[in-house]
Amino acid sequence: MKKLPQSTALRSSCPIATALDILGDKWTLLLIRDIGLFGRHRYKDFQESKENMPSNILATRLARMVKCGLLEKRPYQNNPPRYDYHLTSRSEELVPLVKSLAMWSAKHVSGVKIPAGRTS
Amino acid sequence: MKKLPQSTALRSSCPIATALDILGDKWTLLLIRDIGLFGRHRYKDFQESKENMPSNILATRLARMVKCGLLEKRPYQNNPPRYDYHLTSRSEELVPLVKSLAMWSAKHVSGVKIPAGRTS
Repeated sequence: MKKLPQSTALRSSCPIATALDILGDKWTLLLIRDIGLFGRHRYKDFQESKENMPSNILATRLARMVKCGLLEKRPYQNNPPRYDYHLTSRSEELVPLVKSLAMWSAKHVSGVKIPAGRTS
Repeated sequence: MKKLPQSTALRSSCPIATALDILGDKWTLLLIRDIGLFGRHRYKDFQESKENMPSNILATRLARMVKCGLLEKRPYQNNPPRYDYHLTSRSEELVPLVKSLAMWSAKHVSGVKIPAGRTS
């Protein structure tokens, strides 16, 4: 997969700042969670997530993630055309990081638990 | 260290969403980078970071991070009183995750590199 352009580094060439520019809003990594851990792939599946992602944010994020090579949009039906979303090798690499975030907050926030079967 | 209250989970009790509610803006993890990886501890050090964090955002984030147990504020001078900021055990655990983010964007974004001596 071709690297993202240098202009992706919005604030500085620091690799951490750049990762946060790409991933660091509250929704992008949740979509990686939905697809990579929960097996959700379609627009309406994402809308059913319990965080109630606003529809306009969802559409914008999905488009941006496809553009950044974090998601692949695939047709699953022709007439009318319908698409679903899949992780790419680039975003598959982020799944362990998403799991680390989960472990961290389950440890540090009361009432937050890893659902059974989601830790491995 | 006492767990954060259940109300910290803003959008749902999902541990990933909760971690992103605590950490998922573009500045919080950069402050963990500044302190944990770059050895910066004072307000003016943070202001000198090349991302030019706006002063009002910096003050708000530092206060919020102290409240969430991510930073400890320590006096380093009495007259006039001056404080610096240190990671806690809770935020020390996030340093490997910050490094993973760095490795990810160094791999995927042109021109973004891990500075020498920052990988270990």
